Amino acid sequence: MSTIVAPKGLEGIVAANSGICWIDGDAGVLAYRGIDIHELAVRSTFEETTYLLWFGKLPTTTELANFKANLAAARMMAPHITEVMSALPSSATPMEVLRTAVSALSTFDEDEKDCSYEANVRKSFRLTAQIAMIVANFDRLRKKKPLVEPNPTLSHAGNFLWMLTGEKPTETAEKTFDLALILHAEHELNASTFAARVIAATLSDIHSAITGAIGALKGPLHGGANEAVMLMLMEIDRLGEDPVEYVKTQLVAKKKISGFGHRVYTTEDPRATHLRKMSEQLSKGTSKGKYYEWSSQIEKFVKQEKRLNANVDFYSASTYTMLGIDIDLFTPIFALSRIAGWAAHVIEQHQDNRLIRPRADYIGPAYPATYIPITER
Amino acid sequence: MSTIVAPKGLEGIVAANSGICWIDGDAGVLAYRGIDIHELAVRSTFEETTYLLWFGKLPTTTELANFKANLAAARMMAPHITEVMSALPSSATPMEVLRTAVSALSTFDEDEKDCSYEANVRKSFRLTAQIAMIVANFDRLRKKKPLVEPNPTLSHAGNFLWMLTGEKPTETAEKTFDLALILHAEHELNASTFAARVIAATLSDIHSAITGAIGALKGPLHGGANEAVMLMLMEIDRLGEDPVEYVKTQLVAKKKISGFGHRVYTTEDPRATHLRKMSEQLSKGTSKGKYYEWSSQIEKFVKQEKRLNANVDFYSASTYTMLGIDIDLFTPIFALSRIAGWAAHVIEQHQDNRLIRPRADYIGPAYPATYIPITER
Repeated sequence: MSTIVAPKGLEGIVAANSGICWIDGDAGVLAYRGIDIHELAVRSTFEETTYLLWFGKLPTTTELANFKANLAAARMMAPHITEVMSALPSSATPMEVLRTAVSALSTFDEDEKDCSYEANVRKSFRLTAQIAMIVANFDRLRKKKPLVEPNPTLSHAGNFLWMLTGEKPTETAEKTFDLALILHAEHELNASTFAARVIAATLSDIHSAITGAIGALKGPLHGGANEAVMLMLMEIDRLGEDPVEYVKTQLVAKKKISGFGHRVYTTEDPRATHLRKMSEQLSKGTSKGKYYEWSSQIEKFVKQEKRLNANVDFYSASTYTMLGIDIDLFTPIFALSRIAGWAAHVIEQHQDNRLIRPRADYIGPAYPATYIPITER
Repeated sequence: MSTIVAPKGLEGIVAANSGICWIDGDAGVLAYRGIDIHELAVRSTFEETTYLLWFGKLPTTTELANFKANLAAARMMAPHITEVMSALPSSATPMEVLRTAVSALSTFDEDEKDCSYEANVRKSFRLTAQIAMIVANFDRLRKKKPLVEPNPTLSHAGNFLWMLTGEKPTETAEKTFDLALILHAEHELNASTFAARVIAATLSDIHSAITGAIGALKGPLHGGANEAVMLMLMEIDRLGEDPVEYVKTQLVAKKKISGFGHRVYTTEDPRATHLRKMSEQLSKGTSKGKYYEWSSQIEKFVKQEKRLNANVDFYSASTYTMLGIDIDLFTPIFALSRIAGWAAHVIEQHQDNRLIRPRADYIGPAYPATYIPITER
């Protein structure tokens, strides 16, 4: 069989046709279903954006109302999921708990075995609603706070903040969080989405695909970067050091600065533009505003020194912190947004499926190697 | 950025260098670390084969003894895993339970965050031991039978059958099952292994990678085929029909016959050779022997009619059934063997890592599509 040797990490290999996301890395363009992320960021909501990702067009007023009603109605979960979460040790990290709980969700889903378009859409509503609930419930369980019932009148962003804090979010907090969800919702064949498609392509179910995607997102080369950015900002705080001096020292020690550079973008990550703005807006009149200031100084320095651009993770760190969200929830929050894109890709994969099964270039002992009996080894 | 468009499903694309497995699909050759599967099938054990896969060479007597002792010592599990499994509804399928329980395992693993070579090997021992225990425990829990304590003096194959049935397996049963484990242990970049590598390549942990792999294996295009073969044999039994006539009718109705053909092999799957022999041997003097006879007749007919060869799944169906194993455990048993290969690939991926992040060919609405305000849609 003839083979084509791909660059390492499949860089530059077109692995699928997809009508969901358009990225021009050199021009710094990101578009969902053809609509520029800058438009969506300013004019859309997470619900409308998710509708666009799943159904390929913007909804009418009625369609959007139905979509919101469906998503709110899906805010329920078998009580056994709390049992599963409670059985895990208190040292369990949020991403381990999320991965395990999402895997468990399928066992209570009546559509589990059904991979039809209709069933995939029904399950996508439930997964989108439930992932947000799992993250909020997890945080309350570990803080020994009572769980908060979902509120069907709130938006997806608002309901998450409500279930997390037990308080109605301010308009600014809800809007900011909604925008963060829009920006993280979809990004073509990133590693977690690609993992989801590889799994779905065996005609396995969407819960299997999303569980795998969560596992991929958990890796520090993918979802963990904004956590690393925040840890850096807190370290600077602890040391009382000048942020630029701190970064200089790190660079001299050949350490990587998280939140910069991207496999696909050679220019500014268009999502960073909005997160920078969000971070700046939230910084006014709060003691945590320093995290925006320091981020801004570090960004300028790294850009100048290393010609690297801030990516989506760089300003989301200070943004989430100023929203009062714990650092170890940053990656789970990435998941509660990216479920929109993951689901769109699983639905698309199942509609025109072929098993994803590449080959390896064998570099081991030459065939046939001799089986030497154990007494002669 | 220049891109290369890959054939659908990444067919023929070399996605990684790997020293683990050599397949020559046209010659019908499968070799682990250069050693032909026919040699290993006749002369090795699952433990020795797993050593070979993980460490790249056959073990000395001492090395093998240590390996077996390590694997037997890893036969323990936090009692909370049983709690997690018990929280799931009785309708949960074995693969959903396995996926959820393996995900939960990481939360009790002291090496969870450590992706070093040494930690990955330690976790591979535990995962290999624990996956077998989860499958056996699951079956006993659902049958309301008391759990069976692992027996450190038994082989991996023997201990699994012991924990599943509560009876010491016969020598034939243990040897047959051991051989099945050797044959299924590794198969290059099959979909589940590739999923594991995509997940591991974000520098996520081995539990995330294996959880994703289990999700991929769950799909009917991957692990589910031998289950489908057995359901066909039972349907033939129920109808009292001639097996060849039954298959003829299926083919006329354009239905796919499971257990035939393979993406990589254009000639006989070398694993089928041994499974055919195992099935034949077990068929002597048992009423279930008919399943071997029918399989043999169907194989001859499909080969003649469709020029398709039986694959690894075709004779494993009758083999497992004659060993007294429930149909819905076939795919979990695939996992309890393939963990050897999955672990080898995750270890290899982490040793020379690069994020696996391909591109998509965008076929959606042209950019920039207009964001039409909702009142004008």
